[in-house]
Amino acid sequence: MNGTTEDGVVHVGGDARQRFHDSKGYGRPLSGNTIALAPVEAAHLLFRGDLDAVDGVGFQAFFERASDRDPAFAVRFLVYADLRSRGFYLSPAIEGWVPDDTDFADFVVYERGKGPGSGAVRYRVRVVGERDAVRIDDVAAAAAVPETTVLGIVDEESEITYLELTDPDVAGDTAVDLPDSIDGVLLGDRVLCWDAPDRLYRSGFFGRPLSDRDDVGDAGAVQVSLVEAAYLADRGTLAVDGGSDAVVACGRDVEGERFDRRLATYTRLRERGVVPKTGFKFGADFRTYASVDTVDDLGHSELLVRALSADHAFVPRDLALDVRLAHGVRKQMVYSVVADGEVLDWVAVGRLTP
Amino acid sequence: MNGTTEDGVVHVGGDARQRFHDSKGYGRPLSGNTIALAPVEAAHLLFRGDLDAVDGVGFQAFFERASDRDPAFAVRFLVYADLRSRGFYLSPAIEGWVPDDTDFADFVVYERGKGPGSGAVRYRVRVVGERDAVRIDDVAAAAAVPETTVLGIVDEESEITYLELTDPDVAGDTAVDLPDSIDGVLLGDRVLCWDAPDRLYRSGFFGRPLSDRDDVGDAGAVQVSLVEAAYLADRGTLAVDGGSDAVVACGRDVEGERFDRRLATYTRLRERGVVPKTGFKFGADFRTYASVDTVDDLGHSELLVRALSADHAFVPRDLALDVRLAHGVRKQMVYSVVADGEVLDWVAVGRLTP
Repeated sequence: MNGTTEDGVVHVGGDARQRFHDSKGYGRPLSGNTIALAPVEAAHLLFRGDLDAVDGVGFQAFFERASDRDPAFAVRFLVYADLRSRGFYLSPAIEGWVPDDTDFADFVVYERGKGPGSGAVRYRVRVVGERDAVRIDDVAAAAAVPETTVLGIVDEESEITYLELTDPDVAGDTAVDLPDSIDGVLLGDRVLCWDAPDRLYRSGFFGRPLSDRDDVGDAGAVQVSLVEAAYLADRGTLAVDGGSDAVVACGRDVEGERFDRRLATYTRLRERGVVPKTGFKFGADFRTYASVDTVDDLGHSELLVRALSADHAFVPRDLALDVRLAHGVRKQMVYSVVADGEVLDWVAVGRLTP
Repeated sequence: MNGTTEDGVVHVGGDARQRFHDSKGYGRPLSGNTIALAPVEAAHLLFRGDLDAVDGVGFQAFFERASDRDPAFAVRFLVYADLRSRGFYLSPAIEGWVPDDTDFADFVVYERGKGPGSGAVRYRVRVVGERDAVRIDDVAAAAAVPETTVLGIVDEESEITYLELTDPDVAGDTAVDLPDSIDGVLLGDRVLCWDAPDRLYRSGFFGRPLSDRDDVGDAGAVQVSLVEAAYLADRGTLAVDGGSDAVVACGRDVEGERFDRRLATYTRLRERGVVPKTGFKFGADFRTYASVDTVDDLGHSELLVRALSADHAFVPRDLALDVRLAHGVRKQMVYSVVADGEVLDWVAVGRLTP
C-alpha cells in the first residue's frame, strides 16, 4: 500500500481508513476511504511495513527527507514510536485533528483502548530534545490544563524520559506566633540574634541555634539566613540596623536577583502556612514542611522548591537532575515562577511511566 | 583568664600552654607558657567560657569584631566549632603552624586523640560559604595530596556539608573490536547507521537500536550520539559525509565548547577501557561502565562524570546537588578537568561524615 504527500500530509486511499484509522488510530479521515497521515504517522507505518512506500520511497529515505525538512522530526518520531509500543493510540496535535488547545503539545495521547474522536485524552505530550530550552512560563501554563501534560525528552542517545507537569497544592497549616522585637546583627552574609526567644527557632523554625549543645554558653544565640531575616524584618519581628532594606541590600549583594526571587517565594510559602528551610543539601532553594508544631517533632519535608524567573528557560538536563534527586529523597519537585517580586505560578514536575 | 591581640593572633599567658595547647590542642606555643591563638581558636575558647575576655571583650563582641575584619570569619568559626564538637583537635592552616602545604586548606584536622605536633593529619579542610565559588583546578590539585582533602560548606542557615575530594581510579577493561567502515548519516543532532553490524551496539555499546522490538523491520538501524559518532569517525569506524570534522562541527553547533570537553572526556574514558553512556537521566554528561562484555549482561554503572573546563568555578550548591544524586544512585561523582581538548585531571567528590 502506498501514499503520496499533499500539503505536508500523506494521503492514503484503498482501505486505509478502516485499516489504519478506524482500527489503529492513525491519521484523519478525508472523503471516502482516504485518510491523511502526518509525516510521523506515515513514517511509523513505513517502519512497521504496513505502508510500502510514500512518494515512491521507503522508510529510510522518507525519514531522511522528513529530517532534512524539520530537524526535530527524528525526536518526534522516537516519542511517537515509543508511545505506540506502549500500547497507546495518539494523534499529532495538528489544529482540527485533536480536541481543544494544541499550543504546547506535539501529541495528544488517548486513554488505553481509545482513539481519535473518542475525546478521551490521557496525556498531552510535548517532545523536546535534551538540548532544547523550555520556558518555565510555557510549562506553567501547560501544567494548568485538566489533562496530564507531559514532557517527552529525547536524550542524545535517543532514550526517552517522560516528565509529568502538574499544578501542585502548595499549602500548609503552620501558624507562628512571632514575638515583637528581636535584635539581630548582620555579620557577613548571615544575621545573628544573640538573645532570641526560644520560640523563634523551636516553634517558628526560623534560623538555627549557634550551638545545639547544652554545655556551652550563649545557647540563646540563633543564626538566621538573609532570606529569613528579610522576611522577619519586614514584619517588624527582627530589629536590625537599616531594617529590612539593609538585609535585602545585603542579599542582592551576594546573590543578585536570585535573592528577590527567593524572598518572594519564601514569603508566599510562609503566607500559605508552609515552612521553607534551606534546600542546599538537595541543590534546591528550599525544602518545605507543611505542618510544623515544634522542631522537636519535625516530619518529613514534602517539597523541594526552586525559584525561577518567569522568563527562565530550562535545559532539560537540569530538569532531569532536579526531578531525579527529588524522587530519590521522596519529595515533590516544585518550581515557583516569579516576576516583579511576586510568585505568579507553581509547577510540579515528576517522573512518569506512560 | 584573658588574652590580648598581637599581630593578628591572641596571646594568652598563665597556664595557657598546659591548659589549652598541651591538653586540648589549641594554638601554638610561644616562649614560656604563653601561647598564640588564631582568632577562631580564641573565639571558641570564649564561646566555651574557657577564656573570659580578649582585649577586654567577651565572645559576642569578639565575634562581631572578627567578622567585621573578615566576612568569612563566621563560616570558619562554625566549621571549627563543629569539628571540635565531633571530638577532633584541629589547627588553623597558618604557615609554620601545620605540616606541609597550606594553600588550599583552612584547617588541618588531626587523627582522633592526636593534636598539633603529632604530624598525624586526618583531614585538610577548606571552608566555603554556599555562595563562594570554588575553582575545579584548585579542587583537583587539592585532591591529589595523600591526606584526605575536605570541603566544609556552610549553607545560608549555617548547616555544614562535608565533601571529600579524592583522586579517582578511572580505569576499566572493556576491549572493543570495531568493524572497519559503517555508514552513517547526520540527521538533526544525531547520527543514524541504517545497517550497523550487531557488535557495534551489542559488544561496543555504541548508540542504541532504532527499535528494540523483534517484530519490526530495520532492526539493524542504530542511532549514535554526536559524541559517539565523532569518536567513531575519528577512528575510521564510521563513514559519514564530511568525516569527523562534520560531526564535531555539528556538535559545536548545538552544544558550543561543551561538546569539545565532552568529546575529550569520552575519548579518554574509552582509551582507559571504560564505556561512557549518556548521563542525561542523572543530569550528568556520562555514566560509565568499567567492564562491558555484552549489553545483554550489563552491570551497574559505577561513575557519573561531568566534563568541566579547567577554569570552571563551582557554585557549592551545584556540587551538593551532583554529589547527593550520585550517592542516591550508588555511583561515584567524578569531574574531568579539560583544557585544550585534553583531560588534565579527574576529581571524585563524595559525602563525608568526619
